[in-house]
Amino acid sequence: MAIVGTSTRRPDYLDKVTGKGAYVGDLEIPGMAHAKVLSSPLPHARILRIDASKARALPGVFGVLTAHELGDMDPYYGSDIKDRPIIAIDKVRYEGEPVAAVAAVDLETAEAALDLIDVEYEELPVIATMNDALTDGAATVHQSNLCHESHYEWGNTEEGFAEADRIFEDTFTFPMVYHYSLEPHTVIARYDELGITVWDSAQHPFLVRNELARLFGLSLNRVQVVVPYVGGGFGSKSYIKIEPLAVALSREAKRPVKLAYSVEQSAKTVRRHAASITLKTGVRNDGSFVARDCQIRLDTGAYADNGNRVTDRCADQVPGPYLWPHLTVTSKGLYTNTGAAGSFRAIGGPQAAWASESQVDMIADALGIDPLELRLKNLGAPGDVIRQGKNPLDADIATGLKEAAKGVGWAGRGAKPVTQEKETKRGIGLACSVLNAGASPTSTALVRLHADGSATAMVSTVEVGQGSKGVMAQIAAEELCIPLEKVGVVASDTAIVPYDRSTGASRSTTLVGLAVQLGAKEIKQQLLDLASKHFEAPEDKLAFADSSVVFGQESITYAQLIRQMFGGPAGELMGRGYVTPQTEGPLKGLPVFWEMAVVGAEVEVNEKTGAIRVLRLVSVSDIGKAINPKQAEGQDEGAAMQGIGHTLFEELIYEDGQLLNPNLVDYRVPSFEEVPDGFETILIENEDGPGPFGAKGIGEGPIAAVAPAIANAVFQATGVRIKELPLTPERVWRALQAGTSGGHKVDALTEG
Amino acid sequence: MAIVGTSTRRPDYLDKVTGKGAYVGDLEIPGMAHAKVLSSPLPHARILRIDASKARALPGVFGVLTAHELGDMDPYYGSDIKDRPIIAIDKVRYEGEPVAAVAAVDLETAEAALDLIDVEYEELPVIATMNDALTDGAATVHQSNLCHESHYEWGNTEEGFAEADRIFEDTFTFPMVYHYSLEPHTVIARYDELGITVWDSAQHPFLVRNELARLFGLSLNRVQVVVPYVGGGFGSKSYIKIEPLAVALSREAKRPVKLAYSVEQSAKTVRRHAASITLKTGVRNDGSFVARDCQIRLDTGAYADNGNRVTDRCADQVPGPYLWPHLTVTSKGLYTNTGAAGSFRAIGGPQAAWASESQVDMIADALGIDPLELRLKNLGAPGDVIRQGKNPLDADIATGLKEAAKGVGWAGRGAKPVTQEKETKRGIGLACSVLNAGASPTSTALVRLHADGSATAMVSTVEVGQGSKGVMAQIAAEELCIPLEKVGVVASDTAIVPYDRSTGASRSTTLVGLAVQLGAKEIKQQLLDLASKHFEAPEDKLAFADSSVVFGQESITYAQLIRQMFGGPAGELMGRGYVTPQTEGPLKGLPVFWEMAVVGAEVEVNEKTGAIRVLRLVSVSDIGKAINPKQAEGQDEGAAMQGIGHTLFEELIYEDGQLLNPNLVDYRVPSFEEVPDGFETILIENEDGPGPFGAKGIGEGPIAAVAPAIANAVFQATGVRIKELPLTPERVWRALQAGTSGGHKVDALTEG
Repeated sequence: MAIVGTSTRRPDYLDKVTGKGAYVGDLEIPGMAHAKVLSSPLPHARILRIDASKARALPGVFGVLTAHELGDMDPYYGSDIKDRPIIAIDKVRYEGEPVAAVAAVDLETAEAALDLIDVEYEELPVIATMNDALTDGAATVHQSNLCHESHYEWGNTEEGFAEADRIFEDTFTFPMVYHYSLEPHTVIARYDELGITVWDSAQHPFLVRNELARLFGLSLNRVQVVVPYVGGGFGSKSYIKIEPLAVALSREAKRPVKLAYSVEQSAKTVRRHAASITLKTGVRNDGSFVARDCQIRLDTGAYADNGNRVTDRCADQVPGPYLWPHLTVTSKGLYTNTGAAGSFRAIGGPQAAWASESQVDMIADALGIDPLELRLKNLGAPGDVIRQGKNPLDADIATGLKEAAKGVGWAGRGAKPVTQEKETKRGIGLACSVLNAGASPTSTALVRLHADGSATAMVSTVEVGQGSKGVMAQIAAEELCIPLEKVGVVASDTAIVPYDRSTGASRSTTLVGLAVQLGAKEIKQQLLDLASKHFEAPEDKLAFADSSVVFGQESITYAQLIRQMFGGPAGELMGRGYVTPQTEGPLKGLPVFWEMAVVGAEVEVNEKTGAIRVLRLVSVSDIGKAINPKQAEGQDEGAAMQGIGHTLFEELIYEDGQLLNPNLVDYRVPSFEEVPDGFETILIENEDGPGPFGAKGIGEGPIAAVAPAIANAVFQATGVRIKELPLTPERVWRALQAGTSGGHKVDALTEG
Repeated sequence: MAIVGTSTRRPDYLDKVTGKGAYVGDLEIPGMAHAKVLSSPLPHARILRIDASKARALPGVFGVLTAHELGDMDPYYGSDIKDRPIIAIDKVRYEGEPVAAVAAVDLETAEAALDLIDVEYEELPVIATMNDALTDGAATVHQSNLCHESHYEWGNTEEGFAEADRIFEDTFTFPMVYHYSLEPHTVIARYDELGITVWDSAQHPFLVRNELARLFGLSLNRVQVVVPYVGGGFGSKSYIKIEPLAVALSREAKRPVKLAYSVEQSAKTVRRHAASITLKTGVRNDGSFVARDCQIRLDTGAYADNGNRVTDRCADQVPGPYLWPHLTVTSKGLYTNTGAAGSFRAIGGPQAAWASESQVDMIADALGIDPLELRLKNLGAPGDVIRQGKNPLDADIATGLKEAAKGVGWAGRGAKPVTQEKETKRGIGLACSVLNAGASPTSTALVRLHADGSATAMVSTVEVGQGSKGVMAQIAAEELCIPLEKVGVVASDTAIVPYDRSTGASRSTTLVGLAVQLGAKEIKQQLLDLASKHFEAPEDKLAFADSSVVFGQESITYAQLIRQMFGGPAGELMGRGYVTPQTEGPLKGLPVFWEMAVVGAEVEVNEKTGAIRVLRLVSVSDIGKAINPKQAEGQDEGAAMQGIGHTLFEELIYEDGQLLNPNLVDYRVPSFEEVPDGFETILIENEDGPGPFGAKGIGEGPIAAVAPAIANAVFQATGVRIKELPLTPERVWRALQAGTSGGHKVDALTEG
């Protein structure tokens, strides 16, 4: 293959490098008004009265939206659980919740109008934490504080524990973290008598379309979601966020409306679920895993968003890639009076792996077994059913883990690296998990072969920075046997490209790429039909090469075949790609692929300051086939760095429902300073994935395994085990002072 | 049929009525510069020197384009004959030809820069008229003054004349007329390293794409032509006009450039061909047509544009819908130093019918035969081969002519209507012709059926005001058995909709409509496959009704079938429509349909002033099936009114190569004042056309037949025969004074 497997230049390089690429914030729609939102200052309160009459009377104000203006529509929406009102109705449930919105001639006028809106609140008891949510008799955020519960089991866990030689029980906590994509939520909405158009920074334009159609009572052909470049998503722009508010405001203001959130507003709109996970694990003295009971609590905040799915997925991932004879998992998503939590890269995975892989190392330590050996002993192998009712494992985790161990210089549990500096200690840690990213096999694509033999692929995958446009072009070019520069890609506008479910779940290359490949194949079939007539030869004697169909020593170009068909340099061929749960091939059953999450880390801990420096980080992914290796590595590097963020310092801090740190000064994200000196991504390519050319999804795995790998390295370095994130210098220093180690007691800083 | 055949509201009504619809001139592209063109003040000259250095140095100027900046590209373009330079090279050939172009921060700066460009010309002899062009030893506009020549014959015309009882020889002249679409030529071009995008007021976006790709050396996937609403075309925006200039200027200025022409510039860019047609016709005393020799001269101006096709088409149309045993036709397109001529509604047809149908009435008068009877005697009938090697006639002209005669109150050649006013005389005239509009059977379309059973049709037909968007929706809705409001139409952007050759030649409903219907049929086949599995029933037991597939008493909605296929409310079906010369059905051979041109007119002539008032005008078209009857009538009414324009007063006046009247004060177009009190459009619907539901093309016919019908009416009213257009009061008055009548002498005002 000449194109697939090559690190070709991404087609958006020029737009990105020169700044020409347009994001929603760059767009101006004729007649567009500018919007501002009046946010609730209280995390939980009844709205007794809103008076927006003065705001409405302000010159330059085109419309003010409050619950009253929603009229008799069903105003509740959500990805599955429809619990979020377009704008607060009767109650506010988090600090920052939109209570009123103003569309005005400019932002200054809109801002001034907000000051003229008079809202009277009655404060309600604040459910600030998951502990609050679970307290008997506590106030409730919705009808109850339980958003979603997920439970499954196999074997008999109690009997398993009885069979075990040792039982370990630990609770691990994971912080609220924010995606911090550079571009906050931004949308321009236009509502008129004919329908809705939104220009949206969105990962799931077709799901936005569906939900807007439902809310506003329109058929799908009347709702258009246009996604220009997106300045990062990581799950924060999945499903539907502020689009209904912008559309309702446009309807009220009778003109297009641009609603651009600040970082603070975005951080309150969606974040990752904080978690508290208690694992009770029974093992034999030889290290065999016997039984595990997992109790997961996830803080979904004031609204479900995607919390039901995160709750399920965290439950699905907490067993890790191991074979458990007996397993019980209970996962609860809980409402609190904080900003809603939803999808975030490897949903549920980092929380699950943090708990599971920390404890695996603790067990190894207690049993005196090398943690690598302990893992290898219990890992599922390719073909093993690791989750009942699901597709068998298709990734070779053991090989990946060994690669990571080798890459990071793992030499056994006792063989820790030495450091020259007195105040620092070094250690190496490993972690592995496996993600059911949940990629939905529902993608379509259209490939067009133009009259000169060049092509355009029409796909809905959103270019969120991951490089999907180039990958789709590579797939089409390779399958069509034409040069890469002769393929254009048109993406992410629901009115013009065919359906794709979503950009996320590591699915674009595998599933949209497969749709593109199937589309190209349908074109090739048409070319075969034409060439078969032209050569008067059976199709099985024909082959494809260099933009031509070849028959023995003869050949005819695609352009010539199209010219014959249309009687001149005219026309084009179209090929459709449908990926469905019924698609022939490896898509039968779910997940369509398992995503390996394997990381090895070497760290240096400053015992005087508690500061951790990651010296080496090696991640391994099973990509099946890397369409564009450099981009694939970039994806995994991004996941690893984002994992370093929540491992070392990222945490949204809510105090009594008030978010304290929604800015880059108080909420620190990784910078180039934190990039490990040794930073390696290993891609396993067996060409065995369900996607085009054997590809399978990557780009999420490392984020799940970084935190336990680092914590395990910190333990090797210092003998101190910390069970909550992030591993800030203060927390590490305190743990070092307390000498918390290996054991089962919760360290001093742990909160409920 | 519930939807097809109904005069549904057009989907663009809101955009048009509220002014929200965006035309190219309304668009702002980020970083866009504004362009002005330095036009040649001379109609024919050598360019000795251009010095643009001062203009380049002017602050705010981003680039100046002259021939020098074209570098070594092939700078000549055109629809077929590539004789037009992107910008004048060495020579100018018409007054107004672009010599230099400036892109600047605003129009004022661009304008100021034009004044700083110094051009030195050497005047050349001006070929002002076709007579000049044909003068031996005259200067030549290009290598010669013959742009294109077309010739065909059958029988033996000389022998035919020998058999004839009477021979008539007359020369008729037709003026240069301008389309006068409300929106002049406007384009925004963006050229960068990745390709070209143009936002264009264009009727043939795919042909613009092809020619830009050729000129700038790009594959088709790298050239995007986006056409928003178009403010009228009528052929003036066919093929390629100012796009190459705008693209080259964008390349030079290194940013997007908007180039918006004035009416004066547009009128010099393209117009209709002036014509001089000499017909020698031999008939028997009983009125049988025996032989005709036709000598056509067409003034294509300084560049060919579409002149070769107009030359051919005029030749094709000059015999009219009659059966000629012997025929000779020679048609010459000639270069002159005037603005180029190209396509204009019913290309070549008005000139041909003006000559032919005027002479038919003159023959009737000379033979003492009723002109209606004379026509009926010689008309081809459906199934007759009226042009050798072409598809037989598929229109019943005789029935149409009788309808028109009845509609306009024709009561025989002597039975002229009476008027109460002393100074006026009334008369009725008839004319009929048949157009080979040249509709190319090369269209494709894509129809998408969404997960809720609503649909979107992707078509390249340009909405130039004719109502194509609504018609395409009607066709898709009818074929898919879904409500009209559940169909959206996405149109005219070469990057996103599949190929269509062009919007013109009365072809959109018939050929693009057919592609849409075929696309819908392919979707229905997919639905049948799904439903057949669902019901476990053979496809021939299934039927379509109300967004559902029906099996006996059971039914399943499209939405349910798509949901089954994709395992949820997801996905979509795509159906492709390919219309090619090989498409099964009635498209074999050309033309794909003959377009009837039948008009009856009653006029009142003021003998004192020479003013003509059209009292009644009845046009008849054979539409096969009217998808939207009101819109179809509107199309024919528009053609009739535009015909009244060139009949009564429209004429571009060039004097020694200088255009004297490029504005609405000096160039008069019809207004509501001129709408006849009795204004009727009759549509013949036999559902026998090659298009969807039996449709065939209309909307051009009347413009060809209006002028001779009116001139024939003037003759009946006054006994005066005028053989040149327009029939201005002055010309009519002079003719009345001269008493020119019925005969064969050329009247006083006729020029070569």
